[in-house]
Amino acid sequence: MAQKRPFATNEQIEALARVYPTPFYLYDEAGIRRTAEALTSAFSWAPSFREYFAVKATPNPAIISILAEYGCGVDCSSACELLMAEALGISGEQIMFCSNDTPAGEFAHAGRLGATIILDDETHIDALLAEQGALPERVGLRFNPGGDFDFANGIFGRPEEAKFGLTEDQLLEAATRLRELGVEQIGLHALLASNTLTNEYYPALARRLFRLAVRLQAECGIRIAFVDLSGGVGIDYRPEDEPNDIAAIGAGVRRAYEEVLVPAGLDDVAIFTELGRFMTGPHALLITRVIHTKETYRNYLGVDACASNLMRPMLYGAYHHITVLGREDEPACVRYDVTGMLCENSDKLAVDRLLPRAQVGDLLAIHDVGAHGHSMGYTYNGRLRSAEVLLDADGSHRLIRRAETPLDYFATLDVLPIGSDLAALVRRSEGEPKGKPARP
Amino acid sequence: MAQKRPFATNEQIEALARVYPTPFYLYDEAGIRRTAEALTSAFSWAPSFREYFAVKATPNPAIISILAEYGCGVDCSSACELLMAEALGISGEQIMFCSNDTPAGEFAHAGRLGATIILDDETHIDALLAEQGALPERVGLRFNPGGDFDFANGIFGRPEEAKFGLTEDQLLEAATRLRELGVEQIGLHALLASNTLTNEYYPALARRLFRLAVRLQAECGIRIAFVDLSGGVGIDYRPEDEPNDIAAIGAGVRRAYEEVLVPAGLDDVAIFTELGRFMTGPHALLITRVIHTKETYRNYLGVDACASNLMRPMLYGAYHHITVLGREDEPACVRYDVTGMLCENSDKLAVDRLLPRAQVGDLLAIHDVGAHGHSMGYTYNGRLRSAEVLLDADGSHRLIRRAETPLDYFATLDVLPIGSDLAALVRRSEGEPKGKPARP
Repeated sequence: MAQKRPFATNEQIEALARVYPTPFYLYDEAGIRRTAEALTSAFSWAPSFREYFAVKATPNPAIISILAEYGCGVDCSSACELLMAEALGISGEQIMFCSNDTPAGEFAHAGRLGATIILDDETHIDALLAEQGALPERVGLRFNPGGDFDFANGIFGRPEEAKFGLTEDQLLEAATRLRELGVEQIGLHALLASNTLTNEYYPALARRLFRLAVRLQAECGIRIAFVDLSGGVGIDYRPEDEPNDIAAIGAGVRRAYEEVLVPAGLDDVAIFTELGRFMTGPHALLITRVIHTKETYRNYLGVDACASNLMRPMLYGAYHHITVLGREDEPACVRYDVTGMLCENSDKLAVDRLLPRAQVGDLLAIHDVGAHGHSMGYTYNGRLRSAEVLLDADGSHRLIRRAETPLDYFATLDVLPIGSDLAALVRRSEGEPKGKPARP
Repeated sequence: MAQKRPFATNEQIEALARVYPTPFYLYDEAGIRRTAEALTSAFSWAPSFREYFAVKATPNPAIISILAEYGCGVDCSSACELLMAEALGISGEQIMFCSNDTPAGEFAHAGRLGATIILDDETHIDALLAEQGALPERVGLRFNPGGDFDFANGIFGRPEEAKFGLTEDQLLEAATRLRELGVEQIGLHALLASNTLTNEYYPALARRLFRLAVRLQAECGIRIAFVDLSGGVGIDYRPEDEPNDIAAIGAGVRRAYEEVLVPAGLDDVAIFTELGRFMTGPHALLITRVIHTKETYRNYLGVDACASNLMRPMLYGAYHHITVLGREDEPACVRYDVTGMLCENSDKLAVDRLLPRAQVGDLLAIHDVGAHGHSMGYTYNGRLRSAEVLLDADGSHRLIRRAETPLDYFATLDVLPIGSDLAALVRRSEGEPKGKPARP
């Protein structure tokens, strides 16, 4: 079985854990750069290729800025995500706004930034028109073919049961209407599976969207400007997983392009992706310390992280590999449930996991938390979300998000008379808020 | 089938929705008071009865203060929950501190407040001793009998697989050690099921704990001061559910008390509960507005709330009843998926739900969100947690938590240079932050 090793040395992680209180997220700048380069290279054949990083995966400006160096834009789907892009000076063709059940004002916001907008439904044409005054030159449409899709998986389910996108008939009607309303260019978008581990998903999806593009151009006489393959390319969470080969995926999409689009005269359609998990997922560790061991009917390893810091195991039963630092060469002989401190029995970061025998004080590295990790945290039970630290390519480090403090937790109670007492109490009892280390 | 009707009139809710932007939580003071009275009455026979409200269910000072009028204390399990109690002036015997995998410093914090502490494990004796310097006069022990328990359910699972508590042998050893260390009184605690809908759970649990108390007193010669039945008494989320009868539950526990404890000479053991869901669960509605309708392979009703506001349907597949306000008398003839706007297909507040045909602009009342509702919210995808409003017994209303704003969302990025740009941008673009209505 393949090994999974942390991207940092034990000495590095131990040194960081003396600067930043555990638990904390540790991102790997070098790894993020490698993946961005590999993706760019895999799609270098494609006209006007652009990756729009799915901000929801890791909404941290420091991470987004690294990706921007490789030409990556952002895939936003909420006002807060648009605000983050705006503050970073990202605008125009660098923003894809792709939402469903869109609240009032967000199409207008996206329009002000010049974002390309993907419509999820026919009624969104009127919403866009109402909010922007006029339709933009270029509009995207999200497709849902219904039925099954070979690569559908548990998290996403069957396309037919997904809330996203238009049927093929609806999409043809919408494109016709958009053309009549003066839109000159159409883009197509679809997400039909999540976290796939196969080099065939993207090519199969691309082929389906390319055929639709050919039909759309022929029947509606509208220019197809781009095909956005969205996300869905996954990562090898388990040591035994075979990782995706992004070069093979890019080549597979290219074959579909050359076989379907080019013969139809569509040889300038741009290719876009909206990868989140694939870009950053493998490039972060959640560093947590064992604070408790317990043996009852099972063996428990209690750590100082919990579902507040990483919800995927609770929410999806997701597997995240765990390394007990310093015990890599000891036999994995104890079957542990690795638990957090929430008063919720499902607060387990791993269940039935064979690990070396660990002790209070040991550091654990929980792997592959670089996407949908910190961003899915919550503050249930009064537990706080952790800091994010970036390990730079040169081995230095910097805090890119501080840990929450009780002041953050109580912030929205400031409308109550007790709000100020709470804030005063926190300041008095802690001096400096916990979890906010000195800037290194 | 029984009806579920909102506790407020449509006129009241519509008027509130003009003051407070949807979505918002609406709590029912009168209902909370009725439940507190019913519980107090059901256990009026029990020596020194006290309900310790499970703060994690609804960590709002305004709600906790209402319950305090009925003598309720608080069940805390984190530093933030202790801080909230402290700010409210709650201390001593009014606080039960019941945690597992307890982070350093929290036993000390609980000790400073004079809280009664429930230990989850033998090693917690040493932790408590180390943090408090000396052991308190009275200590609780959490019991886990292992095996199955008749009332085990999906959320909680089998006691044998639960991370909580000590085995019977461990508990006897721990009690002996505590006595040797000078502890004079022991309490027992157990949670063996969650959200039960039967009047038999609490009495069965009580009987089990009472037998253990008798054994403990006999074998360890230590005084049993209290039995804490913890939570687990559920509510009727579905219209067809038969609600629990708290009077019958109290009477059932009393029978067990008289049959097991009294004959053993244990006629002064205090009875405690740590109910959360039962106390406040039925007494809040999530008020949300339809902002989108869509028909593809299914019928979708898009609302302005999402899993950020209510995670239970996504996390547990939980049922929350929905009333389409103003259409109570129309036939429930459309099978809807009620969706939020997260880019996550599981963001559905109801699936396959028969409702009257609804239109954009309709208000929905999502029932029974008064516990583990707002407190389980997150900010994934840049979506913000909503306000909480209290409908007073006299029909007036007040904001008891404001909605989050983008400033809250970006708060922990203040360690980055862009942090101040983000804050300035939010202030500039919104004037007054959205979702923070004028104080009524």
